[in-house]
Amino acid sequence: MNFNDWTFDRQSQIPLYLQLYQQLREAILQGDFGSQRRLPPSRALADALDMARVTVSQAYDQLAAEGFVVQRSGAGTFIAPQVPLSLVEETQANVRPFQPNFSSWGERVRQTAVATASKTPRPEIDFGFGRSFPHIFPYDIWRKLLARYLSTDDVMLSRYGSVAGFHPLREALADYLTRWRGVVCQAEQVVIVNGAQQALDILARLLLEPGDEVLVETPGYADAAALFALNGARLTAVPVDDAGFCVDRIPAHSQARLAFVTPSNQFPHGGTLPLARRLALLQWAQQHDALIIEDDYDGELRYDGRPLAALQGLSADERVIYLGTFSKVLFPALRLSYVVLPTALVLPFVQAKQLIDRGAPTLTQAAVADFMLEGHFERHLRHLRQAYGERRETLVAALQTHLPNLVRYADEPAGLHVMLYLPEALAETAVITAAAEAGVGVYPAAPYFMRQPSPPAILLGFSGLSEPDIEQGVAQLGGVVGKLLDA
Amino acid sequence: MNFNDWTFDRQSQIPLYLQLYQQLREAILQGDFGSQRRLPPSRALADALDMARVTVSQAYDQLAAEGFVVQRSGAGTFIAPQVPLSLVEETQANVRPFQPNFSSWGERVRQTAVATASKTPRPEIDFGFGRSFPHIFPYDIWRKLLARYLSTDDVMLSRYGSVAGFHPLREALADYLTRWRGVVCQAEQVVIVNGAQQALDILARLLLEPGDEVLVETPGYADAAALFALNGARLTAVPVDDAGFCVDRIPAHSQARLAFVTPSNQFPHGGTLPLARRLALLQWAQQHDALIIEDDYDGELRYDGRPLAALQGLSADERVIYLGTFSKVLFPALRLSYVVLPTALVLPFVQAKQLIDRGAPTLTQAAVADFMLEGHFERHLRHLRQAYGERRETLVAALQTHLPNLVRYADEPAGLHVMLYLPEALAETAVITAAAEAGVGVYPAAPYFMRQPSPPAILLGFSGLSEPDIEQGVAQLGGVVGKLLDA
Repeated sequence: MNFNDWTFDRQSQIPLYLQLYQQLREAILQGDFGSQRRLPPSRALADALDMARVTVSQAYDQLAAEGFVVQRSGAGTFIAPQVPLSLVEETQANVRPFQPNFSSWGERVRQTAVATASKTPRPEIDFGFGRSFPHIFPYDIWRKLLARYLSTDDVMLSRYGSVAGFHPLREALADYLTRWRGVVCQAEQVVIVNGAQQALDILARLLLEPGDEVLVETPGYADAAALFALNGARLTAVPVDDAGFCVDRIPAHSQARLAFVTPSNQFPHGGTLPLARRLALLQWAQQHDALIIEDDYDGELRYDGRPLAALQGLSADERVIYLGTFSKVLFPALRLSYVVLPTALVLPFVQAKQLIDRGAPTLTQAAVADFMLEGHFERHLRHLRQAYGERRETLVAALQTHLPNLVRYADEPAGLHVMLYLPEALAETAVITAAAEAGVGVYPAAPYFMRQPSPPAILLGFSGLSEPDIEQGVAQLGGVVGKLLDA
Repeated sequence: MNFNDWTFDRQSQIPLYLQLYQQLREAILQGDFGSQRRLPPSRALADALDMARVTVSQAYDQLAAEGFVVQRSGAGTFIAPQVPLSLVEETQANVRPFQPNFSSWGERVRQTAVATASKTPRPEIDFGFGRSFPHIFPYDIWRKLLARYLSTDDVMLSRYGSVAGFHPLREALADYLTRWRGVVCQAEQVVIVNGAQQALDILARLLLEPGDEVLVETPGYADAAALFALNGARLTAVPVDDAGFCVDRIPAHSQARLAFVTPSNQFPHGGTLPLARRLALLQWAQQHDALIIEDDYDGELRYDGRPLAALQGLSADERVIYLGTFSKVLFPALRLSYVVLPTALVLPFVQAKQLIDRGAPTLTQAAVADFMLEGHFERHLRHLRQAYGERRETLVAALQTHLPNLVRYADEPAGLHVMLYLPEALAETAVITAAAEAGVGVYPAAPYFMRQPSPPAILLGFSGLSEPDIEQGVAQLGGVVGKLLDA
């Protein structure tokens, strides 16, 4: 056993005795001592390694505490009998790292293509969506609100929070949703979740058996569809038009007990579900004893007058689950969403959440509650509508200038992106690639269509860009599309 | 149709037109207009309600925008043809609120008893556990770190974060776990989760088919067992003694491919798994091609010298999944935990997390990363060990004074609670009730035993109490136990 090639970093944060302990431990586990069970006397090792004897003793003590060695007074320090040489052989025998056997759920996860951040450098002008515009958010107020709860007298943070959510936030939301979204609910029906995906996952697990049919929109919110499929659901894709979900296109023979819709502003196509379709959808749900999930992901963001009331408020018998999120109107990294549940679902949902994650961070919830209660939220929404509305107008004007009669889109004054249907002659990917080469990031619509082939289309998010960038980006896109058409 | 009983709050935040819109909307949906489809002229209604005509017009416009009414110039405002009187009948017909059909998973959730906060007033002296001691946490530093990222120039918050976690935090954890917990890992194997329960849920879903066998400890962490059972697993409870998980008590015929253990400090019994058992457990795992989940929920909290190295570091072939949390060492409301995964599990785990919740809040992760990188974390751990170590000594001393030879407990200088085995003659619930009446909160051990009947025992958490309270609480508990024994 040769200690001379051992190296020690005497500048390191890690105490010397610990560095020695780690190397001795490794040597013992690797069987470097071979059949020799006795460690060198601390004095001898200390001399050999040029360190204080107490350092070696500390290392030996730690090894003894962990059971790697036994110290026999007088006789010295020995590798513990329970440390088998066989462990070493096993180590050699099992160099192959563990390979898991996945469940069928696990296999589905692995087969689910997940949009991952592309490795390519971000384009100069990025029409990425699902972004918020940082310069609008009142960070100074937010800082104050967070700090308010960060004091040693406050025991709130030292306990686990309520699983259903911080109650003042649930009350603030119930009040806000009643006044501004036409939602009919009590605070007890509002449950805070770590993002809308979590609410969908819990609902799918609570309500769906493998093989159950679920209605989704096409084009539609792909991640919701993926989640239902992941949990074993059979998806039936119902087409949308400029007025959203085509209720009359629900297959007559459909056995679906669950439908996922975006009535306020259909994602990603755009368009608001008219009253007649809303009533027809509720009627369908009643007749089929089905439940509707209304994803109101950006219902607040309408730029012509106030938002339309939610579908949930029209349901006389609690057949609509309302999903809302702060990701779009505060910031995505907040990871805070909420769900308004039918009375009969509240307790089971909360019990499930208790088991699978114990609720959202209390501090953030408390800050958001105050943000709402003190009027900052509604003021911020006004600023957002102003800023995003202007950006959207700039985008639409630029489209008319630079892509006249070349693209179709649902001209809904709402949301954070516009979905452009391209000339049939063009390939979606070709446009995206050419745009990227021109320094403009636009995004494919194909992933949102449940049936392929899909019409060539791209998504342009405007919420993260300044107006000049929007104008310039569309100009460049116009050039790209023109070239491709001429080619 | 009589408008006179309608009430308006002219002081309200809600604009008057909106209050009118809401009452008109309700009246239309309730069918209060009966067969009369024409709404009163705006001037007439304005006079009747004593409000400006423009207010009524705004309300009508909103109703029109939502499709409840149609405005025919000259002719007036009419309830839209698509608003059927039948809706009203349906409304009456469906007073019965929606009743969901639960999946088998949903039914299991509903049958899983979940510990909920008791309605009884908190006792003066509460030996509740899973609490942190707020007065130790450096809130001033924490505030500074949070504020650092809350500036408008920082786009971090305006985008969705990385699903696997904020990379600097993953690197800081990999470094810390290597140096202080003997974990062998790269930053890429470290994934941030919203609490350990989420990691267990994802792992159970990825790896377990209904009916698969899982080894758990008894007494043990009940919520982990509940989660495995919820996901269809068949539980095999393996007893523990003062040295933790009894590897030699694993049934010879066991088909388990997964084992959940707490080697650093067995929960809730207490005790550290000795090296011989660790090696035997790893050998069992290799022989059965099984995976081990090591829950190191409070491995940092040892009060005699430094923590023992984790089981994970002993596995030569990545058979151990390491679970750690900030709930105990920072604060529970942070809802931040982490898992160190075998290489082969990283991508599937992250893909699953992407689908079910998109990752943890970025701001908190960034603050924790700096908290670790700037040395605050290890300093805070030293303070915690000091403070909790003293509290534990106070508790143990008080037990020797006030309950001599009456109770047994694993005297492990670690963790945040002590589990007391009571005299067999006493009923667990009787002790808890009597203690509560004496103003002392102690907690049942029965829920942690996978097999009933369980020996009478109680849990005393000391992390949330001052030393005088601990001393006084135990004194009162001693009196209670004495009385019950005499009775």
